[in-house]
Amino acid sequence: MDEKELSQIISEVIREYENKTNESSKNFQSLNDGNIPVGVSNRHIHLTQEHLDILFGPGYELTKLKDLSQPGQYACKEQLTLIGPSLRAIEGVRVLGPLRKKSQVEISKTDSFTLKVKAPVRESGDVAGSAPITIVGPKGIVELKEGCILANRHIHMSPSDAERFGVKDGDYVAVDTIGEGKRTTLWDVQIRVSEKFILEMHLDTDDANACGIGNGSRVKLIKNK
Amino acid sequence: MDEKELSQIISEVIREYENKTNESSKNFQSLNDGNIPVGVSNRHIHLTQEHLDILFGPGYELTKLKDLSQPGQYACKEQLTLIGPSLRAIEGVRVLGPLRKKSQVEISKTDSFTLKVKAPVRESGDVAGSAPITIVGPKGIVELKEGCILANRHIHMSPSDAERFGVKDGDYVAVDTIGEGKRTTLWDVQIRVSEKFILEMHLDTDDANACGIGNGSRVKLIKNK
Repeated sequence: MDEKELSQIISEVIREYENKTNESSKNFQSLNDGNIPVGVSNRHIHLTQEHLDILFGPGYELTKLKDLSQPGQYACKEQLTLIGPSLRAIEGVRVLGPLRKKSQVEISKTDSFTLKVKAPVRESGDVAGSAPITIVGPKGIVELKEGCILANRHIHMSPSDAERFGVKDGDYVAVDTIGEGKRTTLWDVQIRVSEKFILEMHLDTDDANACGIGNGSRVKLIKNK
Repeated sequence: MDEKELSQIISEVIREYENKTNESSKNFQSLNDGNIPVGVSNRHIHLTQEHLDILFGPGYELTKLKDLSQPGQYACKEQLTLIGPSLRAIEGVRVLGPLRKKSQVEISKTDSFTLKVKAPVRESGDVAGSAPITIVGPKGIVELKEGCILANRHIHMSPSDAERFGVKDGDYVAVDTIGEGKRTTLWDVQIRVSEKFILEMHLDTDDANACGIGNGSRVKLIKNK
């Protein structure tokens, strides 16, 4: 084997090596380049029937204002006031339907400074040991012992989307965003898979504003680290 | 050359290739792992003498409240009210000293929605063609035709820091942040080098809150993409 032959082999080895190490991430990216639509979640409240009765009066029923992108979820006409240990109020906080088994208040980190509430980052529904908060309604007040959270970054998708992206329910991924002068990679984004879900990444207002993106923006799914 | 020898050469080539491609980023990171302190900039105002006179009365002088981390810069006792096209006000906005040649209002994207001001991401001082905003003071009102910006992500450092990190004034880098449940990579972070500067990354409240970090947090410098 002469030097030229060896050189060719070495070039091939390097090319093969590059292909192998890049292959999985290339495939991952080609599927979804800027392909996931964003929905920004402003602060909102999920209520139990018991708390709805306290806040709005016995037997009260939620009034649907408009459907949200995830099937079965809707914004309600009803708004409430939040108060935290700062004694400062955040007014006009939207109630989302349908009713749930546990009441839950989702705020941003920015809101948490206004209210002086130490809300942890949590998956929706995982409220055990989360922050207390006071909800004021027209007919009564609910002092939640726990239930105030910063919603984690997450992506809703159908099983077929999950298959397409090569992820499964409960996986963590990351996304690249491309807001002008504000390019950002958001890590620790939870994948949620259900037949009922429409492909959409949910961000709170802090994440959206830091990234300079909003409803209808698109992000690219990458591997978590 | 037998198969074993060839295999050894190939292994060496791969090792050498890996070393080469990783070397620069490895060196880059070993210097600064979680090593850059963060300073969070809340909304604030820089004024000219002319605008100070209008807002507080002729011949008025700023009152230093406390020094900021960058030498020569200070927060003032004086606060003003901002009003934008929404006709909603943001009150208690701190004036920073010393006076400048152009007045400048730095807000967050979150603030820009409150005010309905279309503030672009800009380097401090680069206000040409930026957003108009109204500043209300105790003795007068200034209608800035331009000067309202979202400050770009940037890192102040001394020439010796710059040498240590292998960057120069005007370079763009990125940083990794490690806030709990909020790990984020912020791209397009501008390097600013001056003998007067202390090593510090400046973030606005949106970026800080999205990352779940605050004053005294530390970030890791990585290469921009």
